[in-house]
Amino acid sequence: MKTTSGNFRIGIIGCGYWGPNLIRNFSSVKGSQVKYICDLDAERLAVVHEQFPACQPTTDYKTLLADPELDAVAIATPVFAHHRLAIDALNAGKHVFIEKPLASSVAEAEEIVALAREKGLVLQVDHTFVYTSAVQKIKELVDSGELGDLLYFDSVRVNLGLFQSDINVIWDLAPHDFSIMDYVFAQKPVAISAQGRAHFGMKFEDIAYVTAYFDTDTIAHFHVNWLSPVKIRQVLLGGSRKMLVWDDMDVSEPVKVYDRGVELGEGKGGLYNALVQYRLGDMHAPRLAAREALRLEAQHFKECVEQGKSPTTDGEMGLRVVKLLEATQKSLENGGQKIPIT
Amino acid sequence: MKTTSGNFRIGIIGCGYWGPNLIRNFSSVKGSQVKYICDLDAERLAVVHEQFPACQPTTDYKTLLADPELDAVAIATPVFAHHRLAIDALNAGKHVFIEKPLASSVAEAEEIVALAREKGLVLQVDHTFVYTSAVQKIKELVDSGELGDLLYFDSVRVNLGLFQSDINVIWDLAPHDFSIMDYVFAQKPVAISAQGRAHFGMKFEDIAYVTAYFDTDTIAHFHVNWLSPVKIRQVLLGGSRKMLVWDDMDVSEPVKVYDRGVELGEGKGGLYNALVQYRLGDMHAPRLAAREALRLEAQHFKECVEQGKSPTTDGEMGLRVVKLLEATQKSLENGGQKIPIT
Amino acid sequence: MKTTSGNFRIGIIGCGYWGPNLIRNFSSVKGSQVKYICDLDAERLAVVHEQFPACQPTTDYKTLLADPELDAVAIATPVFAHHRLAIDALNAGKHVFIEKPLASSVAEAEEIVALAREKGLVLQVDHTFVYTSAVQKIKELVDSGELGDLLYFDSVRVNLGLFQSDINVIWDLAPHDFSIMDYVFAQKPVAISAQGRAHFGMKFEDIAYVTAYFDTDTIAHFHVNWLSPVKIRQVLLGGSRKMLVWDDMDVSEPVKVYDRGVELGEGKGGLYNALVQYRLGDMHAPRLAAREALRLEAQHFKECVEQGKSPTTDGEMGLRVVKLLEATQKSLENGGQKIPIT
Amino acid sequence: MKTTSGNFRIGIIGCGYWGPNLIRNFSSVKGSQVKYICDLDAERLAVVHEQFPACQPTTDYKTLLADPELDAVAIATPVFAHHRLAIDALNAGKHVFIEKPLASSVAEAEEIVALAREKGLVLQVDHTFVYTSAVQKIKELVDSGELGDLLYFDSVRVNLGLFQSDINVIWDLAPHDFSIMDYVFAQKPVAISAQGRAHFGMKFEDIAYVTAYFDTDTIAHFHVNWLSPVKIRQVLLGGSRKMLVWDDMDVSEPVKVYDRGVELGEGKGGLYNALVQYRLGDMHAPRLAAREALRLEAQHFKECVEQGKSPTTDGEMGLRVVKLLEATQKSLENGGQKIPIT
Repeated sequence: MKTTSGNFRIGIIGCGYWGPNLIRNFSSVKGSQVKYICDLDAERLAVVHEQFPACQPTTDYKTLLADPELDAVAIATPVFAHHRLAIDALNAGKHVFIEKPLASSVAEAEEIVALAREKGLVLQVDHTFVYTSAVQKIKELVDSGELGDLLYFDSVRVNLGLFQSDINVIWDLAPHDFSIMDYVFAQKPVAISAQGRAHFGMKFEDIAYVTAYFDTDTIAHFHVNWLSPVKIRQVLLGGSRKMLVWDDMDVSEPVKVYDRGVELGEGKGGLYNALVQYRLGDMHAPRLAAREALRLEAQHFKECVEQGKSPTTDGEMGLRVVKLLEATQKSLENGGQKIPIT
Repeated sequence: MKTTSGNFRIGIIGCGYWGPNLIRNFSSVKGSQVKYICDLDAERLAVVHEQFPACQPTTDYKTLLADPELDAVAIATPVFAHHRLAIDALNAGKHVFIEKPLASSVAEAEEIVALAREKGLVLQVDHTFVYTSAVQKIKELVDSGELGDLLYFDSVRVNLGLFQSDINVIWDLAPHDFSIMDYVFAQKPVAISAQGRAHFGMKFEDIAYVTAYFDTDTIAHFHVNWLSPVKIRQVLLGGSRKMLVWDDMDVSEPVKVYDRGVELGEGKGGLYNALVQYRLGDMHAPRLAAREALRLEAQHFKECVEQGKSPTTDGEMGLRVVKLLEATQKSLENGGQKIPIT
Repeated sequence: MKTTSGNFRIGIIGCGYWGPNLIRNFSSVKGSQVKYICDLDAERLAVVHEQFPACQPTTDYKTLLADPELDAVAIATPVFAHHRLAIDALNAGKHVFIEKPLASSVAEAEEIVALAREKGLVLQVDHTFVYTSAVQKIKELVDSGELGDLLYFDSVRVNLGLFQSDINVIWDLAPHDFSIMDYVFAQKPVAISAQGRAHFGMKFEDIAYVTAYFDTDTIAHFHVNWLSPVKIRQVLLGGSRKMLVWDDMDVSEPVKVYDRGVELGEGKGGLYNALVQYRLGDMHAPRLAAREALRLEAQHFKECVEQGKSPTTDGEMGLRVVKLLEATQKSLENGGQKIPIT
Repeated sequence: MKTTSGNFRIGIIGCGYWGPNLIRNFSSVKGSQVKYICDLDAERLAVVHEQFPACQPTTDYKTLLADPELDAVAIATPVFAHHRLAIDALNAGKHVFIEKPLASSVAEAEEIVALAREKGLVLQVDHTFVYTSAVQKIKELVDSGELGDLLYFDSVRVNLGLFQSDINVIWDLAPHDFSIMDYVFAQKPVAISAQGRAHFGMKFEDIAYVTAYFDTDTIAHFHVNWLSPVKIRQVLLGGSRKMLVWDDMDVSEPVKVYDRGVELGEGKGGLYNALVQYRLGDMHAPRLAAREALRLEAQHFKECVEQGKSPTTDGEMGLRVVKLLEATQKSLENGGQKIPIT
């Protein structure tokens, strides 16, 4: 299937919470058209159709796959349906934009990635945070060496969250943090351990703590929580030269770079603490461009399709995130046992 | 040995960082006198003596133990010396006020506690935070049932810390958090697991994450870190009725109580997420009395000695904290394995 | 003209920055229809029409006035055009919803108010802040007597603002603060003085300070500024019993009530300072309903029209605000002279 | 009188709230000795003497003036006594360190300054803030031209303050802000106007707003208030190139420099607002040295005496501050009239 620039047609499968954002953003990309909107729930579909009257509604996703004019589909259904929809779409020759997490198991995710590669189709996972100004700036600071060697990545993502009916807090929130870490860190974790609890007699954990281990002395840790009275979105990133705090709730200066750290002196007298000294310097908050990440991401998908490029958040990244999720889940179910990442 | 009210004599062993605070506070308690100050380092002793000329200086702690007039000693040496000094002091019939942690092992701590009990002497561990207005208020809120059942305790204690030459970040910082949790929670943890890393080729961990498990669905977690560019001292305490945030860096309103949580509805239609709903209410920040915790603690020790009472932070609490520290250490050394607390 | 409930028709005159918000909100009110959208600029009108295809576009506002079916017009043009449009609309028998400030002079404003009264038509000025949860809550706290007597009202509204081509910072920002004070305070100011400066060779002040005087010992003060590097939206409201801080940039707890103040003791020994003492108590942040003020306001306008009620932000309030603006302007032009409000 | 370095003797007159700070800091300066402490209240003197047993106590300040060995006196009495004490001390040949404000009227201040000049003695006014790291850094930023031309200085200094028995909030708090502005700004104000109110039937204003005018388009404004439920210590300093916020309550990053402002474009089409545009850039928080300002100031006084230098906060500055205070007072008493500064 040939895609002519300026004539990119996509259909959106799943019109729940996130679907309308996809419709709106893909519609606003120049040269892109949302031809179909699809949902099993006819009532919800009607409501969304009223908002976007130019899109053709359907409750049957096969209508989309059968349309030879359609370049791509965006899948925004609950995660359990991702695998079947993605496989069918790829088999129908459609490029696929898919919500995070890519799939509900490593096996499923691997199958999707393999099929996309085999068919030569673009597979982009919607890890939106990667496209934000903040994460782009952090990546730039890390890559430039300004932070030095990375010592730790500490993330807190907590608030009074909506209890999900089918997944725990890990599958709900951790895909964000795992994808951010994956993007920022060249190095990948080799093992995971996790602790968590369900409350109120619920089946799924509402609070969890995850540690990721690396081959080096880097360590990463994630706190995800649906039961916090306050909303915290904070990453501490410790480098050997500088350190960084990203507070996503701070609208004016979300990213702050501290010229602080420790200095290692020469050994004398065998005194351990004589060697490690504070360094306290200035703080710098780079100006971040105001932009909507999802719009950039939609545009990026279109470009990848048109130019045959691999997306920033490609299937491989989506798969790595699912590997971390599955290992986390396994660790939770095994009393916090350390689970290797293969 | 008889202690007459208004005539309480104590000697301070160890005049390093914390010692002068003890001298100052025990001196200021009405009816209390700091008779001796003791340090192995004669030079440091001289400096401190200049500040407190009324105290008798000595480099030999046995001078204190031999003085029949002396009621008590306060031990503020490095932790490895705690055991020998405490045992000797108790055997000499002195009441003991001792820095946290009580000892460097459970075995040592148990021996000290047993001897104090056998001799009928007061043993008070200096877990200062327990005596702060904030912790007293939190305890009061928990005990009154205002928070409901405790769901989780999440503590972050991070800053650009002084690397210690003989202990890791756990033994340096976690005694604070473990003692606070011990005081606030009626229930005690049954197991611990911990993750951490050393950096810069150092031997001791500078960042660590600790999870404490309970027999119920309560969970506690602690982040201690010497490598943070910003200072954070924050506890989130989730209850089934209300939730609490204690930000010890907020000088105006450190404790905030949120009338927020989840409501469990009756089951219908088998839909899981229909049962759990948000509740968003007011926030309330109780006024905390301005007071110096260490002064109250010194006064409390004197009262316990005079009235034969058991201190709030008695040897048993000190022992429980050491048990948590030892289990944490063991877990760190065993790749995060879950270690039972006996 | 008879207005049947559920059949309320309005036309929007002026489709600049604010117009589309009016279209969206009046469209969303149940039983209300935005029949016309009107702007002199045909190009802009076309853009807005694309967003709201159900509305009939016109560049001639007389089309609206000539339509006997139309109940009301909303005027969202630059302020210099308010007077002519409002007078024409009222003469055509239309109820009028009009942007703040009501008019560019007291004389104009008085004429509009008088005509609306004479015609028995509803005149509502869009002082949106009055309809926010925060201002409603503050009004409630003041009216209930919880704050006691009002001692002062201090408002700061500063940021890096868009320089206006035709008005100074007073006419741009102060209408917000003047209307909030007017709504919250039963008492009205009797005089105004103002200080300000223009910079960069501009004609209009970009920074100004305004003081409002009352017959009592109450005082009000306003800082408005287009040249601040940070955005501040803060009101301090001092009462004789309690005090309040409204920080509109704080998304979680914008309104905080402090049980703090001074206590007046009995006179003894003629010592002045013995009589006035601090009182420091708890802080309380009431939960505010999440709601869009402009939607409520649109609904309120419709109800006032249908039920013949006077709006909360009626022409009289709009006139009082213009009186304050004109007095402020006069004081600015006379070196800060105190100008009486009649 | 000859002063040998390393042998600087000072006496402190007035042992109230601030006196002990002076004793402590002058004692800690190398080569300086606090020989006398003096207070009319024998009881208070005894209490302070207990803290500083090395100082000779006296209730008669003439004892100090009569001692030929004494180099200088520090005057920390209520302001009404400043004039007589300073005049007597200078006539006795003593260098004078004196609390802010220098005197309670311009006439008195001028007399003191003239006498010090005539006698060739050092006169230093204790405007402590000038010696803080924050103000030193701000001065450096202004002098380097990094901020560009100064557009405005906006200061807020409010809290629940101790009502003074003999002065209003202006004489209590504004000396801080006036001295900071005087130090930072090369340019001096030419006129003052002020608004304020007393409450609770008190005689002295507890809230006041002061505007300072300059010959240029710079403007300065001060809000001082004893009736605020929250403590705010904030200065906004707008420059034509950069802008600065100093939040003295922010312990980690009190001074923040914003690379923000407006850009003036070339005029075209006569459109006013096309010429002024935002510029939004990075924020930078310089690391400030941790140091006690009062200690530096005491050391500075000793150096000025020994080297015959004029202090940073000399009598001339002290006099300029009193001129602003007196003009402010006069404006308050005349309904906010603009009062020229001569």
